[in-house]
Amino acid sequence: MPNKTNDPKRSSWIGYNRDTHFPIQNIPFGVFLTRDNVITIGTRIGDYAIDLGALQEMGYFESVPLTDDMFMQDTLNDFISDGKKTWRLVRNRIGDIFDKENSELRDNKSDRDRIIFPIDEVEMQLPVLIGDYTDFYSSKEHATNVGTMFRDPDNALLPNWLHMPVAYHGRSSSVIPSNISIHRPQGQTMPAGSEQPVFGPSKLVDFELEMAFITTDANNLGHPVPVNEAEDYIFGMVILNDWSARDIQKWEYVPLGPFLAKNFASSISPWIVTLDALEPFRTNSPKREKPVLDYLDSKEDSSFDINLEVDITPQQGTPTTVCKSNFKHLYWNISQQLAHHTVNGCSVNSGDLMGSGTISGPTKDSYGSMLELSWRGEKPIQLNDGTERKFIQDYDTVTMRGYCHKGELRIGFGEVSNTLLPIYEPKKK
Amino acid sequence: MPNKTNDPKRSSWIGYNRDTHFPIQNIPFGVFLTRDNVITIGTRIGDYAIDLGALQEMGYFESVPLTDDMFMQDTLNDFISDGKKTWRLVRNRIGDIFDKENSELRDNKSDRDRIIFPIDEVEMQLPVLIGDYTDFYSSKEHATNVGTMFRDPDNALLPNWLHMPVAYHGRSSSVIPSNISIHRPQGQTMPAGSEQPVFGPSKLVDFELEMAFITTDANNLGHPVPVNEAEDYIFGMVILNDWSARDIQKWEYVPLGPFLAKNFASSISPWIVTLDALEPFRTNSPKREKPVLDYLDSKEDSSFDINLEVDITPQQGTPTTVCKSNFKHLYWNISQQLAHHTVNGCSVNSGDLMGSGTISGPTKDSYGSMLELSWRGEKPIQLNDGTERKFIQDYDTVTMRGYCHKGELRIGFGEVSNTLLPIYEPKKK
Repeated sequence: MPNKTNDPKRSSWIGYNRDTHFPIQNIPFGVFLTRDNVITIGTRIGDYAIDLGALQEMGYFESVPLTDDMFMQDTLNDFISDGKKTWRLVRNRIGDIFDKENSELRDNKSDRDRIIFPIDEVEMQLPVLIGDYTDFYSSKEHATNVGTMFRDPDNALLPNWLHMPVAYHGRSSSVIPSNISIHRPQGQTMPAGSEQPVFGPSKLVDFELEMAFITTDANNLGHPVPVNEAEDYIFGMVILNDWSARDIQKWEYVPLGPFLAKNFASSISPWIVTLDALEPFRTNSPKREKPVLDYLDSKEDSSFDINLEVDITPQQGTPTTVCKSNFKHLYWNISQQLAHHTVNGCSVNSGDLMGSGTISGPTKDSYGSMLELSWRGEKPIQLNDGTERKFIQDYDTVTMRGYCHKGELRIGFGEVSNTLLPIYEPKKK
Repeated sequence: MPNKTNDPKRSSWIGYNRDTHFPIQNIPFGVFLTRDNVITIGTRIGDYAIDLGALQEMGYFESVPLTDDMFMQDTLNDFISDGKKTWRLVRNRIGDIFDKENSELRDNKSDRDRIIFPIDEVEMQLPVLIGDYTDFYSSKEHATNVGTMFRDPDNALLPNWLHMPVAYHGRSSSVIPSNISIHRPQGQTMPAGSEQPVFGPSKLVDFELEMAFITTDANNLGHPVPVNEAEDYIFGMVILNDWSARDIQKWEYVPLGPFLAKNFASSISPWIVTLDALEPFRTNSPKREKPVLDYLDSKEDSSFDINLEVDITPQQGTPTTVCKSNFKHLYWNISQQLAHHTVNGCSVNSGDLMGSGTISGPTKDSYGSMLELSWRGEKPIQLNDGTERKFIQDYDTVTMRGYCHKGELRIGFGEVSNTLLPIYEPKKK
């Protein structure tokens, strides 16, 4: 347990506001492009990005056993492959370097100038090369809402749901970082009452409020990961917007699941917050409604209390918060998810991304998608500017935030924010 | 069109039998480990593996514009990224170097000794780093058989099936090359008549006879690939065994599709045969039973006539051929598959793998899975040794072969062959 690094009383010689997501107790990991067009691995304190590649080059990590170019890379995969012991040594060392009482970098202006950048001057990248992206379906409230709308309100949950963390494979190639705009997808849909499918822009583009964890190399093909060792192989978490096209999904998804309805874009917040930083915010998952098989019997406190919010901002408008939810509502926790994923021997590697599924809470303002918030479009959501939304309109920006707080300690994920553009129109030749 | 390279009359100074899969007209691409423990990109003629890295180093590709280390890599991804023009120049140059009449390498024994290895002395690797693996469901016979068994014989095909090449995302991490053994998966199943799911080894492990194509970088996120440009972005094809656990699949697959039933292993033949080598074997897809939307309207001759066979070999037994099928039976072709995959803007990259789905033909001996061949286990298959199979038993080896022939020209894929081991038992500590 990295106690000193998580000590809420510690402060940094880098100043920040009390409500920052990135106090010295966070120390997330990301990848950014500097103003000098160099890609580097970094961390963030307050409103400053810190170049860990330069910090390593200048000798500040000599006390930690690392390969020479560990942070001079364009993804975190190799660092993550090094395993939990290395993550902790590095996080603790960063905490020490930026501790208010430590003068080694604080009082060295020329080193500081090479290492610290105002956050607005860097461009965040995808933090990892994602080998595989899996999306779970672990919110009972979300699965119940969807089952109620599309199947049978009296049997909204399918028979397997309370016995396993249901999941499907997503597409890695369309995972993008925050701030990249996406095009409204086109595709095939079957309009109500029609005999023939039609082609055109999706009319029902939606967000899904999710979180995702990022793994290290967990196992060899054929070897399951036991549920109570699963966290050893989880590096950290991000916020995930699993963009969805509901009309495409409805027509395509039987019998093999969602495909083009999902793989036009999935966006993630750029800073990976480690499980160590989330340690103070552990909590229980909701009470089990059915006993689980042994391989899913995770220990207490395997979930986390993380507040989540979604804003919609129309073009040139102001944000309206349309959803307030919490990660702790999820019925299945990340240990159960990873144990289930590998119980058949499926191999999991450094940089794999595992989405939680839409995180809906018990109240109507905590539903994690427009599908649920507007109840299939039957109950439009009011925005601040007086307009209504059933689903997402062209030029709307969807912003998701996540943060934990407890006493004076606040640890956040920042945000994932992307704008929906109209369909792509190829240039005339 | 690379005419000379495909000329059936051309022969090589490397000798081979008439029935080889790898005459000088094939020139497939793969990656192998040499007896000196060097990983290199290579090709194959007859029963010889050819080290293209060494060939490049010795100057034999000076007429082709290539980066210096193009073939001294452990995957084909960079070569594939270079695009169709480069693939053709290299394939044509290899054809010239090994042409019977060309003395430049033929008469240089010391160069030959560094470049040419008996195929038994090299160890084939995965040819590409697979970014994403998608599996289609494009055999009407297979979809009809499955629908007949599990749903309604009178409405075996779901409503969307004749309108789009249905697909789902698979898992890249569990794609393995031929000759790697796999463990029988364990998992959750719901036995007939039970109230509670149980945990244990899958009792219904199956193969699925598929082929797969491998893409180059096809598009940016948001930009569809037009159906009649799709082949420009397809490098070549392999045989794919999409191993399946039918009992796990049955319990887990609603509503999001197969997951652990599939991602314990998918194996591929190690040599990628280029579309240029398959050019002489073009044929039409089956007649369309419904009109397709414009974005799926591929031109004539967009399919290929490729014979496929599956053998089961018990431990210390002899092979029994249990299935003879053909790629041309597929209702949806590879151009339609890639156009559909990208119509929503999904990005496709170098090294992505796209499976066809199980390739069942119209006759009972052409069904591409044990599920269909044994009709859910109701009609066991007889093997040469007198034993029966409903599904695959521990220590059975499943071998799939594929080849085209036309007149004197024969182009093959070799085989994908893997043995099923019992469940993995962790060593006692």
